[in-house]
Amino acid sequence: MTHHDRFLSRAAEKMQQSAIRKMGTVLASGRDIVSFAPGYPAPETFAWRDFQAIAADLLGTHDGQILQYGPTRGFRPLLEAITGIQQSRGIAVPLEELLVTTGSQQGLDLVARVLIDPGDVILVELPTYVGALTAFRNVQAAMVGVPQEEDGIELAALDRTLERLRSEGRRVKFLYVVPNFQNPTGLLIGLEKRRRLLEWAERRDVLIVEDDPYRELYFEDSASEADVRPIKADDRDGRVIYLSSFSKTLAPGYRVAWISAPPPLAAKIEMAKQAEDLLTGSLDQRMIFEACRRGVLERQLPILRDHYARKRDVMEQALRDEMGDMVTWPKPKGGFFLWLTLPRTIDAERMITRAIEHGVIYVAGESFYVNGEGKNTLRLSFSAPTHERIEAGVSRLARALRAEAEAAATGAAAEVPEAT
Amino acid sequence: MTHHDRFLSRAAEKMQQSAIRKMGTVLASGRDIVSFAPGYPAPETFAWRDFQAIAADLLGTHDGQILQYGPTRGFRPLLEAITGIQQSRGIAVPLEELLVTTGSQQGLDLVARVLIDPGDVILVELPTYVGALTAFRNVQAAMVGVPQEEDGIELAALDRTLERLRSEGRRVKFLYVVPNFQNPTGLLIGLEKRRRLLEWAERRDVLIVEDDPYRELYFEDSASEADVRPIKADDRDGRVIYLSSFSKTLAPGYRVAWISAPPPLAAKIEMAKQAEDLLTGSLDQRMIFEACRRGVLERQLPILRDHYARKRDVMEQALRDEMGDMVTWPKPKGGFFLWLTLPRTIDAERMITRAIEHGVIYVAGESFYVNGEGKNTLRLSFSAPTHERIEAGVSRLARALRAEAEAAATGAAAEVPEAT
Repeated sequence: MTHHDRFLSRAAEKMQQSAIRKMGTVLASGRDIVSFAPGYPAPETFAWRDFQAIAADLLGTHDGQILQYGPTRGFRPLLEAITGIQQSRGIAVPLEELLVTTGSQQGLDLVARVLIDPGDVILVELPTYVGALTAFRNVQAAMVGVPQEEDGIELAALDRTLERLRSEGRRVKFLYVVPNFQNPTGLLIGLEKRRRLLEWAERRDVLIVEDDPYRELYFEDSASEADVRPIKADDRDGRVIYLSSFSKTLAPGYRVAWISAPPPLAAKIEMAKQAEDLLTGSLDQRMIFEACRRGVLERQLPILRDHYARKRDVMEQALRDEMGDMVTWPKPKGGFFLWLTLPRTIDAERMITRAIEHGVIYVAGESFYVNGEGKNTLRLSFSAPTHERIEAGVSRLARALRAEAEAAATGAAAEVPEAT
Repeated sequence: MTHHDRFLSRAAEKMQQSAIRKMGTVLASGRDIVSFAPGYPAPETFAWRDFQAIAADLLGTHDGQILQYGPTRGFRPLLEAITGIQQSRGIAVPLEELLVTTGSQQGLDLVARVLIDPGDVILVELPTYVGALTAFRNVQAAMVGVPQEEDGIELAALDRTLERLRSEGRRVKFLYVVPNFQNPTGLLIGLEKRRRLLEWAERRDVLIVEDDPYRELYFEDSASEADVRPIKADDRDGRVIYLSSFSKTLAPGYRVAWISAPPPLAAKIEMAKQAEDLLTGSLDQRMIFEACRRGVLERQLPILRDHYARKRDVMEQALRDEMGDMVTWPKPKGGFFLWLTLPRTIDAERMITRAIEHGVIYVAGESFYVNGEGKNTLRLSFSAPTHERIEAGVSRLARALRAEAEAAATGAAAEVPEAT
């Protein structure tokens, strides 16, 4: 048999399965497990009847274009609809800035391919979205983390980090941020901080990659539309590459998202996409376009805000009831995630085996940190499970945590490295 | 305004739009132009009624999985169906070899990312599929071409090229071939040559990437199922990575294709795909699976073989009638393409402007050559246009060619470099 390792590229040698997708494998085993791991949207909110009507109408036209190859940039009417969506977010850019991508994951990958040579630095939040890290690692970027505070990334630490890197002769290409209800922490960057981030990027000549999948999902009891204004909305200088998606609002299975980049970069991203998958699914793009045109998206948004806010409430209440004495978290003002800090003696990665035994899974916080921190943190997604499952899952997690804490106190603790 | 060029990766600096996709832009202009350029399947063959019924059934179930995220490897029942399809082609491999890809274009890109470091050599046919070249260029591979004869790539030249490259210290990773009805030439590699190619790869310790989108489209007057046996079918040593697709048999707009690779490579390809787009569209995968399960694919195949064979007949007859005195071509025994050789004084790339004036487009052959040859060749796709449009297009092309030949004879000829 051929030894294939000798044929691998340097990038492939280093590739690893993401922590979240690994959890998917556990789930597929068929056991009764409450999953707080992947950030799946709630399937009970999908607009089934509308999608069924749209599919029937589209396929009933027998219009060849619907199932044919098409332009790499995307289906023109969908691009125009996205222009309108961006305008409603304060982003006024021409059509030539826009591309449809096969999910935002592809957007992140394309940005990385177009901007990064091996060794180039990407600045990221501590912690940050693990899917972005995976894409960035695949182009052999060096990721350097910057801590966050309550209103998002620490500006002074950001600037210090940049200065240090430049003094070491490193090439810093961009800062990657998720300003709205960040994956994994649920944090929201404050408006004044957004303004200063943009000003910093201009002054320091760095690009910003702004990943904004959760923007529409602000919970009206704690955030408003004004709070989620994209950094991109105030970009006059072509500093910001903006990504957003229909995955969290209509459905992820269509794989339709978009990227908005200054035209010279958009042109390169188009060429990279052409080589990567030619185009995003033709039927999928038309399904999404029709959902925009027929007002399905518009109608869904208030429903989704309410739906996820209530799931968050259920999870917070269960957490307070079941383990309020042992854990802390920042209240999620939107999005899908709740970020839990455990007692310092607990290693969340190590606790996973016990959690699975108790019938619950999550993603250990460490995976979201590029510097090995966060051992006593974990991410809970409240988006997909029902209220009853959220309560059952938190209860199982509480039992697993108490058992783990007890084991830690009675000796196993010595093995657990102190978390910071 | 920010100067974005400074931020580009080395790969992005070299990225170029593909010749075929550029033609798409001309088409979108709305003029009456017969397009022989892109290899689009015939929309009149799409199984509209079946797709409509399948979509209605799937979306009617309200089963969340249908629009949800899912495993990177692909929808399990579809992977099992693909295992069956591969078996019918003589390829007996376990499920762990298989991945669904977002079109074969993604398969080519993933293979390149997993195997190629900048400067590594990929051996390719002269000419070869331009979309593969684009994917390979994006990972900064060095492509080296090997001539073809009537029954495919020249084995002696292949081995000489390998030896020369190795003596120069170059790392040759794989040979890329399209054995069945090659894009762009329509050629078929002979069975004995396939056997010898595999034996060569084992002896010389090179991998083979076998791209097989047209396999089902053999024209029964000139080829049989026995003629299209994949190289992969006889691979006992894990030498061959095999790609195929539903784009040419069901519809390209679904972006559903697959890759079959030795398990250690399949595992890396899965990780690369995870970072690239997480998964191929969930609804799309189920649409294709149902089309397999309900026998739609099986029913379509003989219809397609006949349909495209007749279009080929129409194009060949028109070519003989309109310009039989000026051009030559190998008879396509399957697939979508006819490869035309023009008089030596004609530069097909330069002739495009005149062809557009006459209302017809094609892809200049030069784009398919990695060594600058083929200036007096061009690729015609007979797959998409109707019989009437094929006849009209060939007639327009004949007029453009005669005008170009006349111009060449009366002086402009001096500017045209001698083609080989």
